[in-house]
Amino acid sequence: MDENMDKLILHEDRISGNCYKIRLTAALVGLSLERRQYDVLKSETRTEAFLKQVNANGRIPVLQIGDRFLPESNAACWYLACRSPLVPDDRFRQADMLRWMFFEQYNHEPNVATIRFWKAFVGYDKLNEAQRGQIAAKEAAGDAALKLMDEHLETRDFFVGPHLTLADICLYAYTHVAEEGGFTLGAYPHLSAWLGRVAAQPNYIRLED
Amino acid sequence: MDENMDKLILHEDRISGNCYKIRLTAALVGLSLERRQYDVLKSETRTEAFLKQVNANGRIPVLQIGDRFLPESNAACWYLACRSPLVPDDRFRQADMLRWMFFEQYNHEPNVATIRFWKAFVGYDKLNEAQRGQIAAKEAAGDAALKLMDEHLETRDFFVGPHLTLADICLYAYTHVAEEGGFTLGAYPHLSAWLGRVAAQPNYIRLED
Repeated sequence: MDENMDKLILHEDRISGNCYKIRLTAALVGLSLERRQYDVLKSETRTEAFLKQVNANGRIPVLQIGDRFLPESNAACWYLACRSPLVPDDRFRQADMLRWMFFEQYNHEPNVATIRFWKAFVGYDKLNEAQRGQIAAKEAAGDAALKLMDEHLETRDFFVGPHLTLADICLYAYTHVAEEGGFTLGAYPHLSAWLGRVAAQPNYIRLED
Repeated sequence: MDENMDKLILHEDRISGNCYKIRLTAALVGLSLERRQYDVLKSETRTEAFLKQVNANGRIPVLQIGDRFLPESNAACWYLACRSPLVPDDRFRQADMLRWMFFEQYNHEPNVATIRFWKAFVGYDKLNEAQRGQIAAKEAAGDAALKLMDEHLETRDFFVGPHLTLADICLYAYTHVAEEGGFTLGAYPHLSAWLGRVAAQPNYIRLED
């Protein structure tokens, strides 16, 4: 049995960059996804049914493959692309691609994505004191992540090797909407040029598509 | 040329669970690492030389492979183990293993490891106000991560499939020393039994080895 025959369902919220990563990966490798929407602002991923059936961690995205469920956006991208040109065969490059994907989840997403979510979707008035107290540190850490990316891209077209890989897709998702969180992408010229190269890929889709 | 002939050097701090993951992986797959120590409490990973030569992100561990540098602990584990039985061949299991490794870096390490570092190494007196303000939330999030792991292990010996994988190694590193941060492992019986199964693996080494 060809495992690709299993139906692919993306449990998602359309505003989430983590969900967009998976849709963009699927588009670039030519796979179709059925989409099921949950509103994270209404805590629709914390219901008893969701926690029991989809993800005990109460988060989207989750990629459903037949009757199996795969949480964590970057793991879902790996599942879709692991046998495609988006994942290099070379041992060092493959590990280096994962290095940028772990960087994205540790240094980038908790800052760049969280600030965007708080400012553009939750709203400052609805943040609690603990969240407000973290804004300055998260803004600084987000800018540090963007600066590190910009310096890396000064001498490269893509994050790993000469072609687009999952590292680019995973980092692109929240970087290209960072200005919704108040970050200034114009301060990072190499990063801005790279955003254009990603958006120019054949079969590229937008977050709002 | 066999890439395994490249000399492996681990840039590390011996107190770090993220560095231990890499040493444990190397031990289990039978690879030798040369070790270079940096004291993170003395900011030895933020010097100009370190940022320029080893990791622009100012963090350890970094796995050096010949003259190439690979930051991010879980990516380094992947590099060492990707052609070993610690990484399943099956497409879903491989992605599911990465799912737990991303969970570790997003939900577990920033809570369980950070609380241990602050309490057991930095000391409460030396924390700034912003850090102190995060302790309660990080303790709750750390316990939520440990509970989720405990429930997953209720019906399983290892995180993915019937055998030890990198998911177990990466989650083991900070879980087995979580009590140094004040977490109570006795509250999680399935997790505690799993810790014993990991420690019983042939060629297992301890954090302090």
